[in-house]
Amino acid sequence: MSVKREMLYEGKAKKVFLTDDESQVIVEYKDDATAFNGEKKGTIAGKGVLNNRITSIFFKMLEAKGIPTHYIETLSEREMLVKKVRIVPLEVVVRNIAAGSLAKRIGWEEGTILPKTVVELYYKNDELGDPLINHSHVDVLELATPEQVAELEQMAREINVYLKAFLADKNLLLVDFKLEFGIDTDGNLILADEISPDTCRFWDADTKEKLDKDRFRRDLGSVEEAYEEILRRLGGFAL
Amino acid sequence: MSVKREMLYEGKAKKVFLTDDESQVIVEYKDDATAFNGEKKGTIAGKGVLNNRITSIFFKMLEAKGIPTHYIETLSEREMLVKKVRIVPLEVVVRNIAAGSLAKRIGWEEGTILPKTVVELYYKNDELGDPLINHSHVDVLELATPEQVAELEQMAREINVYLKAFLADKNLLLVDFKLEFGIDTDGNLILADEISPDTCRFWDADTKEKLDKDRFRRDLGSVEEAYEEILRRLGGFAL
Ligand SMILES: Nc1ncnc2c1ncn2[C@@H]1O[C@H](COP(=O)(O)OP(=O)(O)O)[C@@H](O)[C@H]1O
Ligand SMILES: Nc1ncnc2c1ncn2[C@@H]1O[C@H](COP(=O)(O)OP(=O)(O)O)[C@@H](O)[C@H]1O
Ligand SMILES: [Mg+2]
Ligand SMILES: [Mg+2]
Repeated sequence: MSVKREMLYEGKAKKVFLTDDESQVIVEYKDDATAFNGEKKGTIAGKGVLNNRITSIFFKMLEAKGIPTHYIETLSEREMLVKKVRIVPLEVVVRNIAAGSLAKRIGWEEGTILPKTVVELYYKNDELGDPLINHSHVDVLELATPEQVAELEQMAREINVYLKAFLADKNLLLVDFKLEFGIDTDGNLILADEISPDTCRFWDADTKEKLDKDRFRRDLGSVEEAYEEILRRLGGFAL
Repeated sequence: MSVKREMLYEGKAKKVFLTDDESQVIVEYKDDATAFNGEKKGTIAGKGVLNNRITSIFFKMLEAKGIPTHYIETLSEREMLVKKVRIVPLEVVVRNIAAGSLAKRIGWEEGTILPKTVVELYYKNDELGDPLINHSHVDVLELATPEQVAELEQMAREINVYLKAFLADKNLLLVDFKLEFGIDTDGNLILADEISPDTCRFWDADTKEKLDKDRFRRDLGSVEEAYEEILRRLGGFAL
């Protein structure tokens, strides 16, 4: 049994609590939603519960495929027990279809299938607005060693293969997604944070309907319903 | 003798003319100056003459060091004969000291010495505002092969070593600079375009006075004088 101790930190979507085991923390999923570097703020009722379940499903699937993750077990509706990590301050974005900032950056229309998978690194730094960076920036900022960067980019590409296939089976397109990695107390580089409609773009494969946080970002309505639909398709219980 | 034929294209700072030799073009340096993706426009009297001379000096020095460049010979005050290339649409930026967009991106104060050389690739595309891109963007846009990217980044780092030493000798700091590479009619990847106060940041090593286009960008005055001072320190004739 893991005992919840004091809060370690509170982020925009989750709170992280210490436990009596120093190698483990409890993540609590909130309903708070932010976009555009915190400029847009709101609440999506039930989001925390949905993202906790959705992340559990993805992480269990990835563990079964041999990807090392922080996931240990789901403790309650909003709580997940995970390995404590020192987060590598990089947002690792993998893209299969042009959307969002990539569509703007390279001038391709949203929805264009990328002939090759795109992997991007963003410096996880709220004050700087999470800027796109390259390997030499990672190096000069000492955010990770070149070996760690190679390893996490390789893991991100593998995760993409597993997620894409898993979602295709549920008639969902994986447009893009953001991962965070961390170093656990044994020194291993593992997948951390969450995989949810907050951190991925999911489109219905037939209608191309957006079933993710873009509904919140772009005021498309039916935000909760989209998150519920994702959980339902993944075979989880709806609320 | 190279005969100047019709203009091939006109850029923001130079005109390129065909010659009777299809492997060669004549570059004509203009006094026009632009900044911030063409938002700011002006003229710097004598700039074309100065940049033609300054570029000649740098390219001759680099050729002597074994760097393959497009430079053939200086034809007149504003004209240079060069190998015709198919420009690789990348701006290759090398940085030794934080300044400009890097200072903003990583949150380091302008003037901070970078513990490691930073190399950045920008997509040379005026409509998109020359965005920063990474290797996977280069790949998906098919701007260059991975081998060409490795080769031009390696050449850029070598050029940095030579330029830094050459300039240190003239009491100048090489803060950062932008290079363009191209494929010549024999299929070789060579250094093209220009190396001048338009495309580099040069600071006086003692006073840290800016002796480059930042004087124009930031309305610091004495723009021409700064370009003249660079030519003088490089041992060229002033106007
Ligand atoms: N296993 C873990 N151990 C420690 N911290 C973690 C773990 N997984 C995720 N975190 C961190 O928890 C914090 C809270 O998450 P979140 O609310 O999503 O934050 P943010 O506002 O940075 O997006 C983030 O800094 C995230 O990187
Ligand atoms: N050796 C060369 N052969 C052909 N084109 C060249 C060569 N060197 C430079 N160029 C190109 O000449 C054009 C004109 O230069 P410039 O006025 O600096 O253009 P820009 O507005 O793109 O900065 C640019 O597109 C540049 O890439
Ligand atoms: Mg987060
Ligand atoms: Mg130019």
